[in-house]
Amino acid sequence: MKNQITTIAFDADDTLWENEQYFRQAEDKFSKLFEHLIAEDVTKQLFDIEMKNLKMYGYGIKGFMLGMIETLAKLSGDKVDTALISKIFEIGHELLNKPIILLDGIEKTLQHLYGKYRLVMATKGDLLDQERKLEKSGLAKYFHHIEIMSDKQPANYRKLIQHLDCKPENFLMVGNSRKSDILPVLAINAFAVEVPYHTTWIHEMHEEEIVHPNFISVESIDQVIPLL
Amino acid sequence: MKNQITTIAFDADDTLWENEQYFRQAEDKFSKLFEHLIAEDVTKQLFDIEMKNLKMYGYGIKGFMLGMIETLAKLSGDKVDTALISKIFEIGHELLNKPIILLDGIEKTLQHLYGKYRLVMATKGDLLDQERKLEKSGLAKYFHHIEIMSDKQPANYRKLIQHLDCKPENFLMVGNSRKSDILPVLAINAFAVEVPYHTTWIHEMHEEEIVHPNFISVESIDQVIPLL
Repeated sequence: MKNQITTIAFDADDTLWENEQYFRQAEDKFSKLFEHLIAEDVTKQLFDIEMKNLKMYGYGIKGFMLGMIETLAKLSGDKVDTALISKIFEIGHELLNKPIILLDGIEKTLQHLYGKYRLVMATKGDLLDQERKLEKSGLAKYFHHIEIMSDKQPANYRKLIQHLDCKPENFLMVGNSRKSDILPVLAINAFAVEVPYHTTWIHEMHEEEIVHPNFISVESIDQVIPLL
Repeated sequence: MKNQITTIAFDADDTLWENEQYFRQAEDKFSKLFEHLIAEDVTKQLFDIEMKNLKMYGYGIKGFMLGMIETLAKLSGDKVDTALISKIFEIGHELLNKPIILLDGIEKTLQHLYGKYRLVMATKGDLLDQERKLEKSGLAKYFHHIEIMSDKQPANYRKLIQHLDCKPENFLMVGNSRKSDILPVLAINAFAVEVPYHTTWIHEMHEEEIVHPNFISVESIDQVIPLL
C-alpha cells in the first residue's frame, strides 16, 4: 500500500473511542435485573432478540433499548414490573450520555496524517448518536468527510468510495471489526488495516485468519503511519 | 428565483410520500389501548414525553416506540400488562413496514426536472428507515445526492449546501414543513417553496404568515416547474 493511498477512512466505535465495553456493562446491568435467572441466559435471550430485529432497527442504542424491553416482556408473565421498565430507560439513557474516551494514540496519529491524506470517518450506527459522539470527541476538525452508514457491506463501501471520487486502490480503511471494517473493504479490492480492540460484540466476530495482500493487522493505531 | 437555481432539494416525508398520517393512525391505536382514559389525554402525555426525549433520541420510529412504552409505564401502576407492550411493538413494526405511497405529481415533476437541475433528497429522521423508504419508493434514480439529517436547523442546511459545492442563491428547498423546510432555508438566504400537506405534527407547526422575497407557497408539487 506504500505511496498508493490518498484517502484514509477510520471506523469510530472502538477504533477512535471506547464503545463496546459500555454496551457490555449495560448488558450486565440489564441481566442483573432478573434476580431468579442466570445472567448468561438473559444475555443470550437479549442477543437473539437483537439479531431478530437487526434488519428492522439497524444498529444503535435505541434499538438496544427496544431489545431490552422486548426481552423483559418475554421473560415476564402477564405483568411486567413498571420499575424494571424504568431501569431499562435508565440503562439506555446512561449509554446515550457516556463520555467519549479516545483510544491511545488516536489524536497524535490523526494530527500526523492530517493535511497529507484525505481523512474520513466511516461509522455504522445511529445518525444523531454518532454525530453527538463526534462532536464530544473534538476530532471533527481532522475529517474531510463524515459517513454514517446504515450497514458496512461491500456495496456501502463502493458507494462511499464513489462519493469520495476515489479508487479502491487509493483507499485505506482502518478499524477494529473484521466483519465490518476489513472483509467488505478487501472484497472491493481496497486496503484494510485492523487495529484490534479488547472487546468485540459476538455479532461482529470473525475468528478465521485473514490472508490477503491488501490486509495488515497492527497492534496500535500509530503503527498505521509507517505503512503509508 | 427564475434562472438562478441549479440545485433543488426535496424533503421526503409528506413531500415525496405519505408519512404523517401513519403516525397519527399509530397514535390513535396507541391511545385506544387505554380503555379508561380519554384518547386526547393519552396523546398529550405521549407528545410531552416525545418532546422531553427529542434531543436525546432524534426523529424516527424507534424513538416513537420508546415514547409509547415510556407513556404506558407512566400511565400504569406498579405493573404493566405485558400484552400492552406487545401491542406497542406491533404498532411500531407496522409503522416500519408501511408501504410507500407517492404524493400526486411527484414522479412526473422529478422526471421533468431530472437532468436540468441537480436534484437532492434532504430528509430528517432515522438513517436506516429513510434509506429503506427511498429504496421502496423507486425514486432513488432521480437524486444526485441523499442527505439524511439529524436536524434541519440553518447550520445543517449551510453544511449541506457547502457539501454540494453550491451557493445559497442557487439552492432551492421544496418541502411541506415551514419549521424544517422553509424557515431555516430562508434564514441562510436560499430559496424555499412550500407544498402544504394536509396533516402536520404539532411539533412542526408554524401558523404565522411568512413574508420573504425568497419564499413561495404552491398548492401542488408540479407548480414548482413554472417557477424555475
